[in-house]
Amino acid sequence: MSQFPDQVIDALSIDTVIFGFDGTLKVLLVKHAEGISEGRWALPGGWIKYNEGLDDAAYRILSSLTGVKDIYLKQLQAFGSLDRFPDKRVVTVAYYSLIQPEEYDLIPGFTASDAKWFDLQDAVDLPYDHDQILAHSIQHLRHIVQHEPIGFNLLPERFTLFQLQRLYEAILGITLDKPNFRRKIMKMNLLADCHEKEAGVPYRAAKLYRFDKQIYDQLLEKGFNFEF
Amino acid sequence: MSQFPDQVIDALSIDTVIFGFDGTLKVLLVKHAEGISEGRWALPGGWIKYNEGLDDAAYRILSSLTGVKDIYLKQLQAFGSLDRFPDKRVVTVAYYSLIQPEEYDLIPGFTASDAKWFDLQDAVDLPYDHDQILAHSIQHLRHIVQHEPIGFNLLPERFTLFQLQRLYEAILGITLDKPNFRRKIMKMNLLADCHEKEAGVPYRAAKLYRFDKQIYDQLLEKGFNFEF
Repeated sequence: MSQFPDQVIDALSIDTVIFGFDGTLKVLLVKHAEGISEGRWALPGGWIKYNEGLDDAAYRILSSLTGVKDIYLKQLQAFGSLDRFPDKRVVTVAYYSLIQPEEYDLIPGFTASDAKWFDLQDAVDLPYDHDQILAHSIQHLRHIVQHEPIGFNLLPERFTLFQLQRLYEAILGITLDKPNFRRKIMKMNLLADCHEKEAGVPYRAAKLYRFDKQIYDQLLEKGFNFEF
Repeated sequence: MSQFPDQVIDALSIDTVIFGFDGTLKVLLVKHAEGISEGRWALPGGWIKYNEGLDDAAYRILSSLTGVKDIYLKQLQAFGSLDRFPDKRVVTVAYYSLIQPEEYDLIPGFTASDAKWFDLQDAVDLPYDHDQILAHSIQHLRHIVQHEPIGFNLLPERFTLFQLQRLYEAILGITLDKPNFRRKIMKMNLLADCHEKEAGVPYRAAKLYRFDKQIYDQLLEKGFNFEF
């Protein structure tokens, strides 16, 4: 390598879009402690070092800014419009993930003075092209949940059909018809009956289900269409 | 901008994966006229200028190397493993497209001494990480044809079910069961009967179909699952 290995690459950055589901859909933002966007909330992002791969950079940047680690980050795409960054040309590679907020402690650090989950409608007027990256990520997420199974890490091990419906509704941003949803989800054979009901609830207890791991993996491989 | 606008960005390149369908699936490669990979066949690629967007760079590079223009390029993702490029760190943003080879004249230029369509099985031992980018693109293409309608620009306006089946078989790399394919494709209501048959063929003429533009656009929007 002709460059200093620990130096950052000038024209290239990483941005991460971490979605959280805890009944509603949220996104993780950090408050910038320095630089031109000081005091503003933005997607967690930063520079890539010459001696680290893109994925490694994404994990390092996310965890140093927010404390969130040991999650699965997937690359979305690169964003590189001419005016996305002030003063110089910077292309950014966006990564995304979908996690349960309550499973992670937020520990702001590095160039972030704070880290917080925002409801989607409050995550607006972000610096750079982060509004666009977020909008694109939401669109992508809505697309993939209709073709790939989700939920293993977003729901308790045993869950009710209503909990699953709420997850889809939160991601898709729409209200689903209950009988229609149930009919379609049951037709996929993805859910196994736990032969058990909710306990200690103040309403009529609902049946509990779990994902059938084998069918889940098959669907992950083959894809499907979940059309509401 | 602090940089010279027409200068290229040091650590960032574009690579394009242009698939062609003319009965079989092919990929467009260029022969490098200079540099460390001189004489080798590779994916058409090059450097991005400070004053051009990613998409613009992809169109410019593809057309200057191969003469292929006025096609729809879609970004796949960035590839940035540490050892993908010799001597220095270069992250590349990959774009792909699927076109009919006979509709484009190949005009090698810029750093390419030649441009040629290769059968997939012959497009091997490419320089850099081009084997990996190509493999990833094929996988992606096979995934999307099962969820989005294809074919508008790959088949004649009126086509037979056999022609459509051949297109899917070429992309998916498998042989499909004829009655099963027909049943599934007709169920999607995507095809409109032209009430006409092939003319001047030495075998029993088959019925001609065309895509129903309205259904096609609906499916493009909503997605589907084409499971064979």
